[in-house]
Amino acid sequence: MNGAEALLRTLAGGGVDVCFANPGTSEMHIMDASRHVAALRFVPCLFEGVATGAADGYARMTGRPAATLLHLGPGFANGLANLHNAGKAGSPMVNLIGEHPAYHRARETPLGSNVEAVAGSFSHWLRTPETVAGLPLDAADAVRAAMAGRIATLAVPADLAWAEGAEPAAIPPREIPDEGDIEPEPVGEALAMLKSGQPTALLLGGKALHGRGLALAARIADASGAALISPFPLARLERGRGRPAVTRLPYVREQARAVLERFRQFILIGTTEPFAYFAMPDDEAVLLPEGAARCVLTGPDSDVVVLLEQLAEAVPLMAETYPRRPETLQAPAGPLTPDTVAATIAALLPEGAIVIDEGMTAGRGIMAACQAAAPHDWLGNTGGSIGIAMPLAVGAAMAAKDRPVLCLSADGSGMYTLQALWTMAREELAVTTVIFANNAYALLKHEYCRVSADPAQGVMDQFDLARPALDWVALAKGMGVPGRRVGSLDELASALRAGFGSGGPNLIEVPL
Amino acid sequence: MNGAEALLRTLAGGGVDVCFANPGTSEMHIMDASRHVAALRFVPCLFEGVATGAADGYARMTGRPAATLLHLGPGFANGLANLHNAGKAGSPMVNLIGEHPAYHRARETPLGSNVEAVAGSFSHWLRTPETVAGLPLDAADAVRAAMAGRIATLAVPADLAWAEGAEPAAIPPREIPDEGDIEPEPVGEALAMLKSGQPTALLLGGKALHGRGLALAARIADASGAALISPFPLARLERGRGRPAVTRLPYVREQARAVLERFRQFILIGTTEPFAYFAMPDDEAVLLPEGAARCVLTGPDSDVVVLLEQLAEAVPLMAETYPRRPETLQAPAGPLTPDTVAATIAALLPEGAIVIDEGMTAGRGIMAACQAAAPHDWLGNTGGSIGIAMPLAVGAAMAAKDRPVLCLSADGSGMYTLQALWTMAREELAVTTVIFANNAYALLKHEYCRVSADPAQGVMDQFDLARPALDWVALAKGMGVPGRRVGSLDELASALRAGFGSGGPNLIEVPL
Repeated sequence: MNGAEALLRTLAGGGVDVCFANPGTSEMHIMDASRHVAALRFVPCLFEGVATGAADGYARMTGRPAATLLHLGPGFANGLANLHNAGKAGSPMVNLIGEHPAYHRARETPLGSNVEAVAGSFSHWLRTPETVAGLPLDAADAVRAAMAGRIATLAVPADLAWAEGAEPAAIPPREIPDEGDIEPEPVGEALAMLKSGQPTALLLGGKALHGRGLALAARIADASGAALISPFPLARLERGRGRPAVTRLPYVREQARAVLERFRQFILIGTTEPFAYFAMPDDEAVLLPEGAARCVLTGPDSDVVVLLEQLAEAVPLMAETYPRRPETLQAPAGPLTPDTVAATIAALLPEGAIVIDEGMTAGRGIMAACQAAAPHDWLGNTGGSIGIAMPLAVGAAMAAKDRPVLCLSADGSGMYTLQALWTMAREELAVTTVIFANNAYALLKHEYCRVSADPAQGVMDQFDLARPALDWVALAKGMGVPGRRVGSLDELASALRAGFGSGGPNLIEVPL
Repeated sequence: MNGAEALLRTLAGGGVDVCFANPGTSEMHIMDASRHVAALRFVPCLFEGVATGAADGYARMTGRPAATLLHLGPGFANGLANLHNAGKAGSPMVNLIGEHPAYHRARETPLGSNVEAVAGSFSHWLRTPETVAGLPLDAADAVRAAMAGRIATLAVPADLAWAEGAEPAAIPPREIPDEGDIEPEPVGEALAMLKSGQPTALLLGGKALHGRGLALAARIADASGAALISPFPLARLERGRGRPAVTRLPYVREQARAVLERFRQFILIGTTEPFAYFAMPDDEAVLLPEGAARCVLTGPDSDVVVLLEQLAEAVPLMAETYPRRPETLQAPAGPLTPDTVAATIAALLPEGAIVIDEGMTAGRGIMAACQAAAPHDWLGNTGGSIGIAMPLAVGAAMAAKDRPVLCLSADGSGMYTLQALWTMAREELAVTTVIFANNAYALLKHEYCRVSADPAQGVMDQFDLARPALDWVALAKGMGVPGRRVGSLDELASALRAGFGSGGPNLIEVPL
């Protein structure tokens, strides 16, 4: 078979079952080979950032890599921003780029570029195969690298894709560390902190925020009285009624510090030390209180669950004290405000929902309100590059077709990757997108007012989206997604019920 | 003054008068400084690819660099695809990136990335200043580098932007090569070709396609009988009634070869050897006929006009033979087809129009039809990364506010950077955007049928934009641009007249 078919069979054999694609001519043989590999489903995207963001969402919900197929250096460049976010989330991913043959790369041509330089900046693993027989072996290495939580990128020269003489390759087994390989030292150090009687927080990231990892962290917290805290950028948090309550640090640095200053000890589990996003003239962005003790149980790349098991075993089990609230929430009445919108969303959130959170300033109260909502997953922006929400929703919906997805997006953020709405319509995905329309880059207006003693109107105007105002109902219609603008809390509740009930894509514009 | 103000004053002093901006928090001090530098106008864009494409369009029409202001590594990454196109066009540009202070770069933070790696892949000149006093000097070097037709990128650490103690810097003078520095050899070689009596083509790029360069090339062609040809990817061609006729090579390789095979000699002026965009299994993408002689008068980076002057002086002047057609064209009647659409556009094109051409398959006949239209400029996609048309139109319209802009875009191409419509509305730019709606990546369908002996319907479906169909009138409405879908040739003519007459942005969706 040709290289393209062996490549796709290798991916499918390694458990990669979806490919978010925006191909061009140099990917044509890979596209043609897709007909022979039904186990690998291709999903078309109209912009590359949709593809990489969708692969991220898919990985967060399944723990497995999705593939992307993007076009040469400039096409891949369009996917980099959400690749940055995916890398910060620790999401596994296998990117395929159709590259020119070596003899064509050596020429000055319109679509010639340094593909490895472009892809290298946001890939942990990168390779350009040199032989058709080697192509599937490299693809197998890419899948293996991705399964370790890495961004793996394979640039596939078109002449290797079309050449005959390839065979699918098996994925090399992943080395599982022996128990003996794991340092017992941090477990002992963490245990000493938990027993010290000092106010202690577990700072959780990655696999400590859902599934077995979160259950273990919650057990440790119950037994020791330690608090559960996550940095603001989080990949996936399981939460809601009856689940452990993890406090997410606020984005605003003063608010984050107010949460953290209550503690004298921090145990980092699957995350690094949190900092404010930006340094400022009078503020170097440190968040942890001065003089507080810290201990790294495990960083983002290590086997979080194994170490949590060891620590949990060492902590004597006490009663589980995190809140178990059986009550249901009531949708509020009153005017349309950030607080009533948050309470309405919390009351109507269906059990098992996946919430994508890029609500920015307008949506900040929703997460707290949803702590008592039906059990759900919460997916955030991990890398701070805005324009992740709708792509992430595409991938999460593809990963969990039986679960409703609620995609919360600010209007400014949504404009970076609005093309995702088309893929939602094409694939009939159960995504309810809520756009908070404040007609501004409100975060930037806020930041500007912090920076400038005397903010200039002309500068403020640069952060305004009101001239002209965006019409999200029209934008959604343009891509085949039914939309509705709501003017009251009742209309919002009605639109949310209808949206969740529809089983398909829909959009609600909320003026805030 | 602080570094940010000195930076902007340096740019403005160097003649940079517009900045296409999509800033974030780390660019706030630069935004604040903009209030003091009225000569540098900031134009907000809702996606970074709009900013870089607009700067390209501005540079093509003025010969001067525009600035962009983009946010850190991932934000800049979103601008790379159109930076690739701008680099292939030889467009000058000064990109500013707000970067973290060095102490914040050393940490693991959400928005931390290797900015130099991201920017380096498509920048010819790249620097990160280390002192506040050095920042304006580096900015001056960036402007100078840009003025030589380069992409210059300056990563500005935020702590240098906010620090006091900077002064604006003067742009270092550009070294103009002596006459003695220019090799006379290629002039002699080209002259010998022109006198040989063999069929000869001048292959023109860059400054040989407009202004003095084109006039000289046409004079040489008139005097010698040589043909004027440009490669398919062209930055800016002056054409229309009464102007020299330059044959643009078709995109389709067989058609390009049919044009080229009539010649035995090629003189390259401001361009490199043309190749087909992609290598294919049975076709290594060479276009020039085997055995033809070639001579490089000057490559894309050299001083095209100086060498053309020398060659023109050496060729005895004969009568000017290129067509001077005083007649005006008549709009045709009949059904809406690619040919009648092309003829209608040609007949109604206003004098002095700037035409942006990314019509892809549906728009291929328009350029030929417009050869006899009123004098106009033609701007093409130089780097083959689609999604350039509307951003380029923004920049061209900002550069030439008294000239109407006609932006021709395929539907698939338009979806990459549709956010440009918002900037057209905000700045009230006189851009008529025509979307050719064939509801497909038609080029890819065509390429796939060439690659596959037996095209699979499932693969063809991946190139379909019909489920759901895009509604461009709704998309335009969503961004404040009035739009109209036309169903007949009369409606198209009426919409074009109204659009050109409106003096503002408007969109016409043409089903083809």
